[in-house]
Amino acid sequence: MKSLNDDKTTVAELKARILAFVHEREWEQFHAPKNLSMALAAEAGELMEHFLWAEAGASRDIAKNDPARRKKIEEELADVIIYALEFANATGIDVAAAIESKMEANGKKYPVEKARGRSEKYTEL
Amino acid sequence: MKSLNDDKTTVAELKARILAFVHEREWEQFHAPKNLSMALAAEAGELMEHFLWAEAGASRDIAKNDPARRKKIEEELADVIIYALEFANATGIDVAAAIESKMEANGKKYPVEKARGRSEKYTEL
Amino acid sequence: MKSLNDDKTTVAELKARILAFVHEREWEQFHAPKNLSMALAAEAGELMEHFLWAEAGASRDIAKNDPARRKKIEEELADVIIYALEFANATGIDVAAAIESKMEANGKKYPVEKARGRSEKYTEL
Amino acid sequence: MKSLNDDKTTVAELKARILAFVHEREWEQFHAPKNLSMALAAEAGELMEHFLWAEAGASRDIAKNDPARRKKIEEELADVIIYALEFANATGIDVAAAIESKMEANGKKYPVEKARGRSEKYTEL
Repeated sequence: MKSLNDDKTTVAELKARILAFVHEREWEQFHAPKNLSMALAAEAGELMEHFLWAEAGASRDIAKNDPARRKKIEEELADVIIYALEFANATGIDVAAAIESKMEANGKKYPVEKARGRSEKYTEL
Repeated sequence: MKSLNDDKTTVAELKARILAFVHEREWEQFHAPKNLSMALAAEAGELMEHFLWAEAGASRDIAKNDPARRKKIEEELADVIIYALEFANATGIDVAAAIESKMEANGKKYPVEKARGRSEKYTEL
Repeated sequence: MKSLNDDKTTVAELKARILAFVHEREWEQFHAPKNLSMALAAEAGELMEHFLWAEAGASRDIAKNDPARRKKIEEELADVIIYALEFANATGIDVAAAIESKMEANGKKYPVEKARGRSEKYTEL
Repeated sequence: MKSLNDDKTTVAELKARILAFVHEREWEQFHAPKNLSMALAAEAGELMEHFLWAEAGASRDIAKNDPARRKKIEEELADVIIYALEFANATGIDVAAAIESKMEANGKKYPVEKARGRSEKYTEL
């Protein structure tokens, strides 16, 4: 029986679920930031593998219209975010605050009037 | 003025903030799953760069005791999760449900009695 | 004065150059396979950053027609291969033999008559 | 019958072998720099997966003393270098010249007397 969804689940609840899973298995000893950053990057690589040879436009279809593929993509994304949140657990980072703070900085680097419809890096806008 | 923190912020609220930022800049056109998976992996690589040559144990200190370094690590982690959540936006994935589902599967692959205190892959337990 | 080029430089010569650089700086102590695999993945992420938002076709032009960008891409690729060859140094892997062996295996997974003009993984051909 | 080894094989010979494999399968159409950089990063992630939870020192043993594991590590490293060399093929980069040039630049950033026995980034030496 599924009980979580994005509308009602806080970041803290997800972090706590993950921490409980880790704690039950006594895995904190392995979860140094170095190791978690590796696991995160490795999972991000696995997510990417679904899209290596597709055009960008076609990658929208891959993620939407093929149920078996979509299931795998959901699992890879979940792995990525699990490791990211466990990294936050291990380092004591408040994810929502960090995101808010980073988006404020991004907003200054990419002001709407300059960045609209453009994909250049802020150093080239 | 900061207003978000993990205790009170839902995943849906974070996703909506990110989507608003993207929409304002008309960046949906660039945010194909393929491209977002690349950006996510690239940011995960940047997070990892903080820990390349440190022993795992020392990486715990890097992330905690050096304020300038910690600030950068928070920013990199934020970038990773921003792209992960925007990937979820672009593909319509419910992150909390995907994590719950993946953790159930992980729980079967790594039963507590077999996995306790061990770092082997489930195929080797 | 440049002296190396692909036509006349053996893999062993490149490996020896890199090892000499590392040895002079007493960096062997940091070059555990774990650490080198992280550095390699991080550099691969940096190479990828040049192509995040471009269409695949446009990425051919980026790498060819913009001299400043091309110079950076060459540097990132060099970093990737330097770490890959140093990984081979640290683990005693013969790169040419490993590539020959892997391409034989790939040839069986992707026979010409089945794989021609197709990008699917061998499990889906 | 194996015929290649690092002592006698030039980079150009490896590049030509890989290009022939690709050409025979008419895969040049998929091998845009964008796509190859993704495949390279994904393979680097797979190489890294062998070392996620091991201490750096233990990772030296993993790569040396476990024959089955070592075989897989050789294959992952081969995949990484195959994609790196095919990236060079697709973009016309001379790998040996790029490495020589990058190592000269690295030598200036990391002069022996300052960098000896230290793992800090050049900006922190």
